[in-house]
Amino acid sequence: MAVKLYELAGANPDLRFSPYCWRTRFALAHKGLAVDGVAWRFTDKAAIAFSGQTKVPVMVDGDQTVSDSWAIAEYLEHTYPDKPALFPNGRAHARFINAWADGVAQAGIGRLIVSDVHDVLAEKDQAYFTATREAFFGQKLTEVTAGRETRVLEWRRCLQPLRTILRTQPWIGGESPDYGDYILAGTLQWARCTSRFELLESNDAASAWFARVLDLFDGLGRRAVTV
Amino acid sequence: MAVKLYELAGANPDLRFSPYCWRTRFALAHKGLAVDGVAWRFTDKAAIAFSGQTKVPVMVDGDQTVSDSWAIAEYLEHTYPDKPALFPNGRAHARFINAWADGVAQAGIGRLIVSDVHDVLAEKDQAYFTATREAFFGQKLTEVTAGRETRVLEWRRCLQPLRTILRTQPWIGGESPDYGDYILAGTLQWARCTSRFELLESNDAASAWFARVLDLFDGLGRRAVTV
Repeated sequence: MAVKLYELAGANPDLRFSPYCWRTRFALAHKGLAVDGVAWRFTDKAAIAFSGQTKVPVMVDGDQTVSDSWAIAEYLEHTYPDKPALFPNGRAHARFINAWADGVAQAGIGRLIVSDVHDVLAEKDQAYFTATREAFFGQKLTEVTAGRETRVLEWRRCLQPLRTILRTQPWIGGESPDYGDYILAGTLQWARCTSRFELLESNDAASAWFARVLDLFDGLGRRAVTV
Repeated sequence: MAVKLYELAGANPDLRFSPYCWRTRFALAHKGLAVDGVAWRFTDKAAIAFSGQTKVPVMVDGDQTVSDSWAIAEYLEHTYPDKPALFPNGRAHARFINAWADGVAQAGIGRLIVSDVHDVLAEKDQAYFTATREAFFGQKLTEVTAGRETRVLEWRRCLQPLRTILRTQPWIGGESPDYGDYILAGTLQWARCTSRFELLESNDAASAWFARVLDLFDGLGRRAVTV
């Protein structure tokens, strides 16, 4: 039986763009598990109330309900130990990469694309999104993304640790991809799906790495619907 | 026979402050190996010419000479597999932490303390240090560190990934310290040994973690000579 995954969707229900849901999508593919993705909107709180959560990803695997992308990855590793390991490099350092991706790479991307994210949302989600994000940033969304053509140059520098390790290993996981790769790829996929803004230059080693992740699992990430 | 370690020293030969040498010091202690530290100055190129290197750490273990802190850690893990593991979480993610520590945490600290580092050096090293660092920064050293009381507030934010993981694990290595801890602790020890500038606030979880690293191995880091 396929795992059921509630995924954040845009006005187009096939546009699935949450960075956290993408981490889970990649993790499920890594484990070779079939997925039944369910489009969910920010304001569909009732649809996932059974999970006790108000945000996705929410995953239902048989009689088990798990939410939060990190918790889902841990659950999958624990429940499917005979499938390829998500954490061949352990969890401790992967947590650091997760915290860095959330707090640095992803937080920075938010300041570059948040108004684009707004624009792909279903109309019923747009007021919720605008209110919560403007409260967070203390600015109008179009003010947050203003000047991004210049600011992206600074943002690109935050990926320097990735570029450094790519000189000696093809994946964050080393010789093969692991959950560390899916963490950051989920973050970049969020921008790729919601925005036409050019985050990475094509000649960047980070771009080449991201392209390799998109090609995994028969192009799972590559085939995603984008704006 | 003790391992011989060439370590960067100040005017006071007992002031050993290189972040890379500290990573090696902690790694050797983790492996339980005795160390014979040799004071070395930036301009003592001839003393380590036998290694083919112009920088420290240079480690001599019997008939083996190894330089570069990362290469030394790999050598120790390979050569002493029965001693406590430096990489219980593998090398791939540890490389990311190493690249992040060098390029973000440490690069930022340099802009806060480089003039203090100059001041602890032996006189014969000061001209070399000033010339190479002013060429790197494109500024006089005192200009580089100007305004640091304000800029340190921004620098402190770069440790956010550390603070995040410390909510769920006591060490970068997880339940016990590993080379990931020694990487960043080496970086902070560099500042602690050379500068009186207050890098971290005492109520910071990152400070508490660093204090724990300083207490390891009978206070190896704590007992270090500082400026």
